[in-house]
Amino acid sequence: MTVTKEIISAIGKFSSATLHEAMGKFGDLPYGIKPISHKMKVCGTAYTVKTIPCDNTILHRAYAYAKPGDVLVVDCSGYYEAGYWGDLMSLGAKTKGLAGLVIDGCVRDADDIEAMGFPVFSRGLCIKGTGKHGDGTLNEPIILGSCFVNPGDIIVGDRDGVVVVPHEQAQDVIEKATAREMKEANVRKELLEGKTSLQIYGWDKKFGF
Amino acid sequence: MTVTKEIISAIGKFSSATLHEAMGKFGDLPYGIKPISHKMKVCGTAYTVKTIPCDNTILHRAYAYAKPGDVLVVDCSGYYEAGYWGDLMSLGAKTKGLAGLVIDGCVRDADDIEAMGFPVFSRGLCIKGTGKHGDGTLNEPIILGSCFVNPGDIIVGDRDGVVVVPHEQAQDVIEKATAREMKEANVRKELLEGKTSLQIYGWDKKFGF
Amino acid sequence: MTVTKEIISAIGKFSSATLHEAMGKFGDLPYGIKPISHKMKVCGTAYTVKTIPCDNTILHRAYAYAKPGDVLVVDCSGYYEAGYWGDLMSLGAKTKGLAGLVIDGCVRDADDIEAMGFPVFSRGLCIKGTGKHGDGTLNEPIILGSCFVNPGDIIVGDRDGVVVVPHEQAQDVIEKATAREMKEANVRKELLEGKTSLQIYGWDKKFGF
Amino acid sequence: MTVTKEIISAIGKFSSATLHEAMGKFGDLPYGIKPISHKMKVCGTAYTVKTIPCDNTILHRAYAYAKPGDVLVVDCSGYYEAGYWGDLMSLGAKTKGLAGLVIDGCVRDADDIEAMGFPVFSRGLCIKGTGKHGDGTLNEPIILGSCFVNPGDIIVGDRDGVVVVPHEQAQDVIEKATAREMKEANVRKELLEGKTSLQIYGWDKKFGF
Amino acid sequence: MTVTKEIISAIGKFSSATLHEAMGKFGDLPYGIKPISHKMKVCGTAYTVKTIPCDNTILHRAYAYAKPGDVLVVDCSGYYEAGYWGDLMSLGAKTKGLAGLVIDGCVRDADDIEAMGFPVFSRGLCIKGTGKHGDGTLNEPIILGSCFVNPGDIIVGDRDGVVVVPHEQAQDVIEKATAREMKEANVRKELLEGKTSLQIYGWDKKFGF
Amino acid sequence: MTVTKEIISAIGKFSSATLHEAMGKFGDLPYGIKPISHKMKVCGTAYTVKTIPCDNTILHRAYAYAKPGDVLVVDCSGYYEAGYWGDLMSLGAKTKGLAGLVIDGCVRDADDIEAMGFPVFSRGLCIKGTGKHGDGTLNEPIILGSCFVNPGDIIVGDRDGVVVVPHEQAQDVIEKATAREMKEANVRKELLEGKTSLQIYGWDKKFGF
Repeated sequence: MTVTKEIISAIGKFSSATLHEAMGKFGDLPYGIKPISHKMKVCGTAYTVKTIPCDNTILHRAYAYAKPGDVLVVDCSGYYEAGYWGDLMSLGAKTKGLAGLVIDGCVRDADDIEAMGFPVFSRGLCIKGTGKHGDGTLNEPIILGSCFVNPGDIIVGDRDGVVVVPHEQAQDVIEKATAREMKEANVRKELLEGKTSLQIYGWDKKFGF
Repeated sequence: MTVTKEIISAIGKFSSATLHEAMGKFGDLPYGIKPISHKMKVCGTAYTVKTIPCDNTILHRAYAYAKPGDVLVVDCSGYYEAGYWGDLMSLGAKTKGLAGLVIDGCVRDADDIEAMGFPVFSRGLCIKGTGKHGDGTLNEPIILGSCFVNPGDIIVGDRDGVVVVPHEQAQDVIEKATAREMKEANVRKELLEGKTSLQIYGWDKKFGF
Repeated sequence: MTVTKEIISAIGKFSSATLHEAMGKFGDLPYGIKPISHKMKVCGTAYTVKTIPCDNTILHRAYAYAKPGDVLVVDCSGYYEAGYWGDLMSLGAKTKGLAGLVIDGCVRDADDIEAMGFPVFSRGLCIKGTGKHGDGTLNEPIILGSCFVNPGDIIVGDRDGVVVVPHEQAQDVIEKATAREMKEANVRKELLEGKTSLQIYGWDKKFGF
Repeated sequence: MTVTKEIISAIGKFSSATLHEAMGKFGDLPYGIKPISHKMKVCGTAYTVKTIPCDNTILHRAYAYAKPGDVLVVDCSGYYEAGYWGDLMSLGAKTKGLAGLVIDGCVRDADDIEAMGFPVFSRGLCIKGTGKHGDGTLNEPIILGSCFVNPGDIIVGDRDGVVVVPHEQAQDVIEKATAREMKEANVRKELLEGKTSLQIYGWDKKFGF
Repeated sequence: MTVTKEIISAIGKFSSATLHEAMGKFGDLPYGIKPISHKMKVCGTAYTVKTIPCDNTILHRAYAYAKPGDVLVVDCSGYYEAGYWGDLMSLGAKTKGLAGLVIDGCVRDADDIEAMGFPVFSRGLCIKGTGKHGDGTLNEPIILGSCFVNPGDIIVGDRDGVVVVPHEQAQDVIEKATAREMKEANVRKELLEGKTSLQIYGWDKKFGF
Repeated sequence: MTVTKEIISAIGKFSSATLHEAMGKFGDLPYGIKPISHKMKVCGTAYTVKTIPCDNTILHRAYAYAKPGDVLVVDCSGYYEAGYWGDLMSLGAKTKGLAGLVIDGCVRDADDIEAMGFPVFSRGLCIKGTGKHGDGTLNEPIILGSCFVNPGDIIVGDRDGVVVVPHEQAQDVIEKATAREMKEANVRKELLEGKTSLQIYGWDKKFGF
């Protein structure tokens, strides 16, 4: 299935938690990966990268080769404590039309990145410089935590975390997420009327209330 | 001793650090438990809960059974990395008049929870969904870190952390915290006049100055 | 070389990451040490302190003996989880003209410290009180992570982290950091014109583009 | 179903890994819990205990109340670094006919315990003494890692780790473990004849060989 | 350069620490990877494998495809806590003439593996069963810790740890390791004569003695 | 008080756990510091050393300057993962009559060290080579975990761990440890007669039996 702009736009309206639930509780990236600023959100197609430990050269290639709307999703080989990405790379990626960065490692220049509004999700901030050896892989499948990320999968991130929607499930996930939100709207109404979730979900018989 | 609204109100005016000191440096919960937003504060009587790992069903019962003014205090059996609580549960708990949530695990839907102003203190944010098995305990003593929490104890949390005041010590703690604040007001005045704490505390003889 | 106010002022205009790179990727303190508020910045000369675990008495001496413009840089002997510093000490240190605190441990009273505008960089916030035994060292060399800090070294901290510039390298680092910023300004311009960093750095031949 | 001596004896002949597989990959305790000596094995019925952090008084009650053939299975409330158990307690428990100890914390007096042949599985060795406050629970369900342990469940431990067989599944698990061992005996024979597991399991078509 | 049996045999006579030093302090695998029994040693050519988290199917293919004398070197995608390898796989690999296993994860059936004398180096022992999904890579470069392992590199492991000698450096490393051992033999003699290493290395002038 | 050979000899007869209890539950070093071989024991007077991270030059000076009967007690500035000590240094130290090494970091050449019978207590084994910068301190007070070690304190280590007896308390600790052992001998006798510790300690009234 082709992932159209409409699909990206539709998926991007859901929260990462809703999409995770709509997929049957799958696709969550490690919870240590968070936006560098609470308000940042990201949605786009995955351009996957694997760096060697403490080396960011391949990231320069990644954002040069990726296409507008892509989100770089980066495995740093388990070496978190380095600043793999900064303000210049953010500027270059943003200028090219990339949608954001999700990296299983640290970044730096947080103030400048925030000011330019380029969404960056990382393990944290670290000033430690990286090497320029250059090895790694570009747009091949990677694993973050226990989650597979394939090129072209849809990435949605917000303050709560990041979720990966396999591109072939996109349409199905949109339908399930929509259904979930409608159901939750009803629950919300009933909660405001003073019902407990035990009553709303019919658990009051089982547990007593 | 009955914990009256007046006592809760009086205790809630102190910071968690001041209460901790007033109790002789006791009652601090693990420092990884923090408000999801800097400005959140919580004060109320503990309704204690123990969940089984990665399962939140009992939390629905907890906020249905707790009384207005209660703070849910939750032990997740050492399994932090799951989203045990979200926006709907916050809405239900807030509607019932609960004072907040303190959980030794993660939550999700941070933006919505923050927007509705329900105080939530947790190990962090995580989208990972939980199971619906249901076991656990309700309003029995629990242990968070090395601190006991008994039903009815007074819970005070702010940006610095969370403290547990055993209900039978409430009156005594208020008096000691008041004395501490008065003493600190004097110290503050003297510091602004240019004295060092060595001089103020009389340590200048001992250490030289 | 004397570290003059002009040098401090000049160095304080660079970011911690830029100074780290200008020194050849050296001088970074452990990345877990961060400002308690995103906007805090610090720049000054190091007054080094080593506390014994969970004891803060020597910090009272430290800010009494340090001189205006100094930054207290504190090794807590690997025991992070305690509130070594708070609002009163911040007030005393600020009144004396100290430039800030960098501590490899936790602090408390974050709201009050933030309100008074005294820059504090720490491992986090913790209410747990400390002892009053008093041992430790004052203004002797310390090690934070794998980085040496000598009395009088220049400390620069911002949201990204903290860097230590050995006082004898100050002039050289200013020159290299200035050169780096000029080079980056050009890169920024070329990026905005649509060039990729592969082209700008001449890596397009090597990697293809 | 009554757990007879015959059942205990039959289950004790299998390795912990075989029983874990026979139950469909369930029942494994945290892998940090290991015998203090490679050669120790344990098999018996669980007498469950929960201690408060760094306090071992309730363990004296536990081995006084447990019956011959029981294995004490102990939750230390997440506080590992203390010596909850030693040579005297081992002597007392062994004299009473207990089958062993499985504790999610540390112990001490390893040489003496090993010499007397009382099986102890722990997080490691630690000399740090414990308090004598005394609270905790006796023979109520506990959780170790993500595994429930109920009083009377069958505990089997060896060098690889510890597994919990719910007492009501004992007969079924014996049958499945027996079947698994027979199947493995055949695999072993074929491997010795030079076949690969791809051929033995019929995966050679799928993967090529 | 072809890695002959003579080279393997020659390299296998050195300790892992000596080879690490002979290469200029490079090639050390993470120190958490240790033999399951103190006396195990391994030496052979690397057959590299990457498994997906908690899945060992590809390991069956690995030992079927590898050639006699190979050591399987396995990256488990950062998921340690599972029993990826056991007695049957050891038997199959040993029967095929493989030289051993080095895995950045756990194994099980330690007693049986030790009894058959197949060298296994791992993060520890764990009974937890793995899945049978099957993905991963075979004989492509992998990264363990910050160390690259290429197919055909020489792997040497003993009680102290594991080192990787790039195959093209083999001859050079043998010469340097030989020189180091000769030098150390002299140092040993002088130490036994009562000299200190300060005297032997000529540091007594610098430090005084 | 002078620490005579008689005192060292007398203290060395007690286990580390007994001495820790005799001092009122003080003096325990971090439990991660263990002998590299189960059977190793150490007893002697502390010669304290602080190394800079990943540098062992000062250890050569330490064993040259220390006197027969001393135990080197080494703080590695929190950087564990390096091989600070090996067979040659063990040989030199043993030849000089040193009593052993206790190091808060790793070592290498475990087989050779074990073979020569020089007691080494460490965080584990690691082949990674160290630098030769040389800084650090010699025979000044150090802190390991939360425990102070002063030059001349008595160090006792066995399989359970390591304890530090301040030299001025030596005589008192010998008396208390002797009393404790006599008391334990009686408990042992009563346990073998079938009494429980509840009965022996008189807790049967309180808890029921």
